[in-house]
Amino acid sequence: MSQDQQAADWWATAVSRVEPNVIELRGHPVQNLIGSMGFAGVIWLMLRGEQPTPAEERLLEAALVSSVDHGPHAPSIAVARMAATCGIGLNNAVATGVNLLGDVHGGAGEQCMRLLDEVRDSDDPATVVTAWRARDRYLPGFGHRFHTRDPRRDPLLTAVERAVADGVVNGSHLRAARTVERLLHPVPINIDGCTAVVYAELGFPPPLARGLFVLSRSVGILAHAWEETGQGRRNKGPIPPTIQPTYTGP
Amino acid sequence: MSQDQQAADWWATAVSRVEPNVIELRGHPVQNLIGSMGFAGVIWLMLRGEQPTPAEERLLEAALVSSVDHGPHAPSIAVARMAATCGIGLNNAVATGVNLLGDVHGGAGEQCMRLLDEVRDSDDPATVVTAWRARDRYLPGFGHRFHTRDPRRDPLLTAVERAVADGVVNGSHLRAARTVERLLHPVPINIDGCTAVVYAELGFPPPLARGLFVLSRSVGILAHAWEETGQGRRNKGPIPPTIQPTYTGP
Amino acid sequence: MSQDQQAADWWATAVSRVEPNVIELRGHPVQNLIGSMGFAGVIWLMLRGEQPTPAEERLLEAALVSSVDHGPHAPSIAVARMAATCGIGLNNAVATGVNLLGDVHGGAGEQCMRLLDEVRDSDDPATVVTAWRARDRYLPGFGHRFHTRDPRRDPLLTAVERAVADGVVNGSHLRAARTVERLLHPVPINIDGCTAVVYAELGFPPPLARGLFVLSRSVGILAHAWEETGQGRRNKGPIPPTIQPTYTGP
Amino acid sequence: MSQDQQAADWWATAVSRVEPNVIELRGHPVQNLIGSMGFAGVIWLMLRGEQPTPAEERLLEAALVSSVDHGPHAPSIAVARMAATCGIGLNNAVATGVNLLGDVHGGAGEQCMRLLDEVRDSDDPATVVTAWRARDRYLPGFGHRFHTRDPRRDPLLTAVERAVADGVVNGSHLRAARTVERLLHPVPINIDGCTAVVYAELGFPPPLARGLFVLSRSVGILAHAWEETGQGRRNKGPIPPTIQPTYTGP
Repeated sequence: MSQDQQAADWWATAVSRVEPNVIELRGHPVQNLIGSMGFAGVIWLMLRGEQPTPAEERLLEAALVSSVDHGPHAPSIAVARMAATCGIGLNNAVATGVNLLGDVHGGAGEQCMRLLDEVRDSDDPATVVTAWRARDRYLPGFGHRFHTRDPRRDPLLTAVERAVADGVVNGSHLRAARTVERLLHPVPINIDGCTAVVYAELGFPPPLARGLFVLSRSVGILAHAWEETGQGRRNKGPIPPTIQPTYTGP
Repeated sequence: MSQDQQAADWWATAVSRVEPNVIELRGHPVQNLIGSMGFAGVIWLMLRGEQPTPAEERLLEAALVSSVDHGPHAPSIAVARMAATCGIGLNNAVATGVNLLGDVHGGAGEQCMRLLDEVRDSDDPATVVTAWRARDRYLPGFGHRFHTRDPRRDPLLTAVERAVADGVVNGSHLRAARTVERLLHPVPINIDGCTAVVYAELGFPPPLARGLFVLSRSVGILAHAWEETGQGRRNKGPIPPTIQPTYTGP
Repeated sequence: MSQDQQAADWWATAVSRVEPNVIELRGHPVQNLIGSMGFAGVIWLMLRGEQPTPAEERLLEAALVSSVDHGPHAPSIAVARMAATCGIGLNNAVATGVNLLGDVHGGAGEQCMRLLDEVRDSDDPATVVTAWRARDRYLPGFGHRFHTRDPRRDPLLTAVERAVADGVVNGSHLRAARTVERLLHPVPINIDGCTAVVYAELGFPPPLARGLFVLSRSVGILAHAWEETGQGRRNKGPIPPTIQPTYTGP
Repeated sequence: MSQDQQAADWWATAVSRVEPNVIELRGHPVQNLIGSMGFAGVIWLMLRGEQPTPAEERLLEAALVSSVDHGPHAPSIAVARMAATCGIGLNNAVATGVNLLGDVHGGAGEQCMRLLDEVRDSDDPATVVTAWRARDRYLPGFGHRFHTRDPRRDPLLTAVERAVADGVVNGSHLRAARTVERLLHPVPINIDGCTAVVYAELGFPPPLARGLFVLSRSVGILAHAWEETGQGRRNKGPIPPTIQPTYTGP
């Protein structure tokens, strides 16, 4: 390699080719995608390099729709609303919310996909579950902190079942999830578990469960930040100024 | 108001209602949306409180698809790739990229919508354009820094024209954009201008041009950050370590 | 010019020189600074390229100390605490807080420095103040939202007075601030105004008022995020889970 | 308990007390600290609740000074410079840089403190080192990627030695580091290791190694972002626009 090529190679990518008057996304001229592909389909294309079938795209879309918002109790939503009152851009407010979707807030789906992989590949699911519980009392994707019966569960699992029936996906992760649910009874699968089943069935690698959750939740973060900008507050704190935080120091 | 209601009211919202076993988005139970609404439609619903028609959703989708990526030269993309090598979460890498979509990087669409509003409402568009140029030599949404003919222009404007012909939108912002283009000849409308036309025709307020760009570009940011994680670099700098930044100090 | 040279020049800087076994900060070998310069002195050196006198460093330090914290009501503090419970790094939690120090939360000092510059250079301060108030009902650096008499005011202004008496600074911005305070009576100068006086007297350009506030407040942000990590909460929302946000939608 | 009281307790803190006309930091009225305590001393106070001795403060200051900058090759520095050209606030640019100080970029000090703790408490340091190397080929705080002899090493270790001689610290972590260095010969202790020794000797818990690094590096991040704003670039990419990233896709 010529010395002179180093900076170009440092930024090598297979995601897109951008040259004067040329934009290709995963090998497709962008003008061929605009108007012909849906947004969820382009998300799939950009992350995986191939286009989904319509049935795959619909299933992805169901999962993306299910996670957009969980109200101001979710730290990601609340901080974006507070950010929107501090004199920074709407993009900065969204970034502030997305920054909080970490291992605890946005990572359960990723961890659940790893769990489901292990269960699926094991002859002894009970041992797998026991090993995971020994490491952490929270089994990712199972149990609830808020909903005893999450309203998103049935439509998502039903969509997966239909996709199995139609031969769109093979159902191995759905079966693994049901196995875990039986072992944990009466602890139910939760929303992170349901979306993990969808993403695993569709063949996404576990880290992209978090990535897809980020794209989904960004919608709710933006909607809340935008609503907040219409209310005229400045430097919104977490509780009204009339309530003093309890002081516990010396 | 009872004192005791203050904290609840401090976080009042019309975006969503979340109670045990209940999640409503803009008044719709989430279970009714999963599987029946597309992701772009839910974006519209969350931001505006109403559902789009299928034709409106398709036009929004065209704009969202057009902006997902512009390669590693875009600072938002580059910083997310660098972030992904520093030992932080994928969500943190995406947030890092989104944080850069400010007035200069992600704000042209918003500013262009304001320009188009003024042109549309004026009897003397030339004076409006002259006034804008007096304030800043960059007229938002027009001119190019990279493409002399942006490949995204024709499919987007064609989609708007078709929507005008079908009575989906009224075309007033498209006409305003063409007026400005004539006045600036040979400076063309650019991608920020084209998406501004779409968002304005669909009735979005200007700040949401940036908001929608954030949702769109997040896809490319995520795809690039994810590709970078597969390459095993640690603490990726902007240029190869063999090239020393020029020192200009004492 | 070769591409490599272009890449080297693209990252040209006078702030530091880093080569194998060499680190120079503003022309000073780092080993000469460690142990001999204080942290506040190095802040000055890095931002301005020259070392402060001991008296200048002490005055800068007084301002830096004054702004470190304002409790969990400050959005920057609250979001960092919430971030610290979401499974992201302590650096990500600090970044989340710093991201909120925008025009409204962290920008008053910068704007106040511009106001003081104008007042100092004017023959008619009353007209300057009137013009600023016509643009925005909040005059940056004056008035209080919380403290009727801010406890940080007297020690900071006294420190400036002493520096004027000692010939360290010339007092022109302090006089400008007192002039504005007389014109606004009984509205007092606030903490942003006091630190603006310090930074202006020391010759910092206005944008660095925000920059220095960022360095100062980062200390409180870190201290609060760190305290929060010791309390074991997961996904801390802005209000306890027992309080439901008021729903105002359809 | 009333909802108001719940909300107050939700934000309980021992870091600061803020009431009208009262600001106390770790129990000290802020007006008593301004002008009498140095910035590094207040950092210590805020993080630990107690004031350092002057000798402890000087040693902390040496470590803080040593890490402020490592040039534009450091991702944290580069992204802040790029951010500063995108039309966002200086605080947003600093936050962007700080966000990258993760496990790989800013976490080595924290991990090294844990290693030194183990070595110090072990009868068999060689086994400890072998176990760490089995988990990861990078031993945190040892080895160099850039400097064969880091210029910050000697002044920092000398400062610790002097502090041991003066009875300021007990030297147990310094001895542990020297033990590891002997075992790894000729791999030297690096800057992360040197600051880890300082922070460990001073009694900081390991996660605060990263926290203190954040405070230190924020200075360089700010200085570079500020320099960049003076150069007038817009949307600065990682390499000059004349260099095309290599395309590796289909």
